[in-house]
Amino acid sequence: MAGKVYLAGAGPGAPELLTTKVKKALERADVILHDALVGPKLQESLSKLSSGEVIDCGKRKGQHKFSQEEINQLLVKRAKDGDIVVRLKGGDPFIFGRGGEELQILKKHGIKTEIIPGITSAIAAPEVAGIPLTHRKVASHVTFVTGHESPAKDSSSIDWEKLAKLDGTLVVLMGITKLKEISQTLIEYGRDPSIPAATIEKGTLADQKGVKGKLKNIAKKVRQAGIKPPGTTIIGDVVEVSEDY
Amino acid sequence: MAGKVYLAGAGPGAPELLTTKVKKALERADVILHDALVGPKLQESLSKLSSGEVIDCGKRKGQHKFSQEEINQLLVKRAKDGDIVVRLKGGDPFIFGRGGEELQILKKHGIKTEIIPGITSAIAAPEVAGIPLTHRKVASHVTFVTGHESPAKDSSSIDWEKLAKLDGTLVVLMGITKLKEISQTLIEYGRDPSIPAATIEKGTLADQKGVKGKLKNIAKKVRQAGIKPPGTTIIGDVVEVSEDY
Repeated sequence: MAGKVYLAGAGPGAPELLTTKVKKALERADVILHDALVGPKLQESLSKLSSGEVIDCGKRKGQHKFSQEEINQLLVKRAKDGDIVVRLKGGDPFIFGRGGEELQILKKHGIKTEIIPGITSAIAAPEVAGIPLTHRKVASHVTFVTGHESPAKDSSSIDWEKLAKLDGTLVVLMGITKLKEISQTLIEYGRDPSIPAATIEKGTLADQKGVKGKLKNIAKKVRQAGIKPPGTTIIGDVVEVSEDY
Repeated sequence: MAGKVYLAGAGPGAPELLTTKVKKALERADVILHDALVGPKLQESLSKLSSGEVIDCGKRKGQHKFSQEEINQLLVKRAKDGDIVVRLKGGDPFIFGRGGEELQILKKHGIKTEIIPGITSAIAAPEVAGIPLTHRKVASHVTFVTGHESPAKDSSSIDWEKLAKLDGTLVVLMGITKLKEISQTLIEYGRDPSIPAATIEKGTLADQKGVKGKLKNIAKKVRQAGIKPPGTTIIGDVVEVSEDY
């Protein structure tokens, strides 16, 4: 009997932001491979939600556990062994989650795969803090970018100059350690230094923490507030909407 | 006793993509105000999920039911009357859902409000079709824009020229009726006419329908395939990822 892989989104962290569909997949699972971005409370509750084996593939910076290659091999092997595999990712599997890469590998090996979307923290973290990423009068588009790589790097695949020209909302994911470089780069390319900005850590969790400032000082404010990665930074006038009351 | 409003996301349509948190809010609700973008199956099941009154505020084009002003007034009135109100929106309440505006009104009236994120169809519709909006080797950023207003309109609040310059993924929401104008505008501003594009109707539902093409012919393909609004259009190389197998 051939197995199956669910590429599933765990949402931003709070267990009650799981969908019914993910819960059903977890109940059926022989094995769950989750990453470090799955919220800690949710990680603890996995053994209640499922009788399957739980493997922590957490790849948090500096505590490297599984390489992407090792995860790919494990997914393929367990599915070929006939297991129901849930590959559980924090947020949504296809938003900077390498879900697209894993899907390609699984398809290449002819493995039955089903994708279950999840709520991305890129949207939910600002939302729970009262910041709408779009607003009819303030921002008619929103861009999500990974802040993982240095904007100064010659090999950077991101055109920060073009992003700096946009007047909509810009959301930088996983960019806390590079925030000073990223904000300076955006300002150098013409983004208004006094545009409002906010950074949120542990979005939607009980210990959610956030700080507001301007593009020119958000990196400093984040450092002063002791906000730690991973986090979400929102740059744009929508940040002020949550103070309009 | 003062009431409360939950600004809640119903997700892209499939009832099993509801979160536990939304379900609990629905169970507690005295009244549910939902919009037309809440999936039809989910609309049918609301009376099973809740004993509260159900009001359809659907504002589908040409079948105008409630104005935004009327919805605002109703939200405020019912909450002031002491009701637990669930304002249920298709997708996520803060992604082109006017949730930000409703939050501002509710706060202005001092009404207790809680936001419950939902899975946006902007991400889930392409995802279930195998299209990841970001991909390490293909797209390091993604932009969501509303396709509701004509790009040719002098008063357009969207700078399509700047959007045309971006090399990441562009997702146009609610843009099916304006797709010809939008794609022509992007091409006029320099976007490659042969960039892959896909449009998806009823994303995540059993009768999901999609069509693939290039930026230059996606509007024609959508018309030929009989794809109807509302829908999601994805423009970018990620569209091809789902054929890489």
